[in-house]
Amino acid sequence: MQRYFIKNEQLKNDLIYIDGQDLHHIKNVMRMRLEDIVEVCDEEENLYICNIIEINKNNVVLNIQETLKPNVELPTSITIALGLTRSSKLEEVLRRITELGASGFIPVEMKRSVVRIKDEKASKIDRMNMIVKEAAEQSKRTKLLEVKEPVKLENLIANSSDYDILVYSYEDLKTDSKNKFKNIISTFKNKRVLVIVGPEGGFSPEEVDELNSKGFIAIGLGPRILRLETAPLYIMSAISYELEL
Amino acid sequence: MQRYFIKNEQLKNDLIYIDGQDLHHIKNVMRMRLEDIVEVCDEEENLYICNIIEINKNNVVLNIQETLKPNVELPTSITIALGLTRSSKLEEVLRRITELGASGFIPVEMKRSVVRIKDEKASKIDRMNMIVKEAAEQSKRTKLLEVKEPVKLENLIANSSDYDILVYSYEDLKTDSKNKFKNIISTFKNKRVLVIVGPEGGFSPEEVDELNSKGFIAIGLGPRILRLETAPLYIMSAISYELEL
Repeated sequence: MQRYFIKNEQLKNDLIYIDGQDLHHIKNVMRMRLEDIVEVCDEEENLYICNIIEINKNNVVLNIQETLKPNVELPTSITIALGLTRSSKLEEVLRRITELGASGFIPVEMKRSVVRIKDEKASKIDRMNMIVKEAAEQSKRTKLLEVKEPVKLENLIANSSDYDILVYSYEDLKTDSKNKFKNIISTFKNKRVLVIVGPEGGFSPEEVDELNSKGFIAIGLGPRILRLETAPLYIMSAISYELEL
Repeated sequence: MQRYFIKNEQLKNDLIYIDGQDLHHIKNVMRMRLEDIVEVCDEEENLYICNIIEINKNNVVLNIQETLKPNVELPTSITIALGLTRSSKLEEVLRRITELGASGFIPVEMKRSVVRIKDEKASKIDRMNMIVKEAAEQSKRTKLLEVKEPVKLENLIANSSDYDILVYSYEDLKTDSKNKFKNIISTFKNKRVLVIVGPEGGFSPEEVDELNSKGFIAIGLGPRILRLETAPLYIMSAISYELEL
């Protein structure tokens, strides 16, 4: 069934008002009619089963038939900050981490990033939000991942007080600390966690020093070298495995 | 450094003889010369650092400078059998599970597969083996994943005595058994494990009955619906996380 994600203010007196792109989608893409059924999620992770009671120029009005509260979201808020790289790779990671339950995504320009922020077009954020909507719907999530504007690593670090736990994935991790990821995952529960994954060439030594000095914890992901597209999926899978299974 | 994978018989009297595609790669793609250094892995997971001492029409001869035994392979043999689908998806999964340490890959025709075995060309196996080599080299593995010919599910089940543990990923798993994956992963150590992941439409009810009756254990991968491209990565990541971190 088609699923839409709304802001809380779109729900008034037990009716839901859909406008903007979702209005276009219901009317012109799905060509839905009165009494057709759709699913709607609000910002509180409620899931409403609704029938369409009105379609006009400005909005579609939905009547709530049933309210559900499925427990499908990770019990932690994970933001993946990924070394800025080609759009196709960013988008693949974004799609998969949305399926795997991440809450946020930030492309980050680092010293070895093959792409620079000035090359990024604003339209890319719109496209990324479309990917998130699609993936959230397909994976039956009740919450949308938030895509943030690309930032430089120094700015991300400067604003990291928004998070409770700071982590970065580091492939050159010495053996004696290789267990840290397993040891800290259980502390992620109900916390806001920022996980930084480096670009193709990895973090520079200066970046590693800076992360360490600002309280970021280095985690290792096993003995094989994972690509930038694979590391975030390993991290999200491990978190789900540890906290949800 | 460039890495090649050899059969044990290519190592004779402390010299390594490279022929075939790898000969072509060294001579014509990499344009290597005498005394250039390459890495070679044999079937026992030894890693040899070698210099080139001879390049002729039929082979490249390598002298072993150093023998290493890095511990980078999963302590279990995991074969992922994936519902037959479009080549681009099969190849993406193959690349990622190679990075993540899988030992085998089998495309499987199931009732709801969108692609049939008769559509598959023999050349695809060659292409898949190239992907495995690339991914194994990049992830610094010492072992190549084995790509098997596509089979029908009934034939895979009939030949499943090659494996010690039989598992399938089932999204409709009832809640009371949802912990099984976590409970059984620790039993995977030093075993040959076959994990079947269904096609886009999932397993048919008859297939589920058949798998259950033949001793396959159903595992759930959490509350969200994962795509066929994502489920194998979740499984491999969880196994690495549990057995290697």
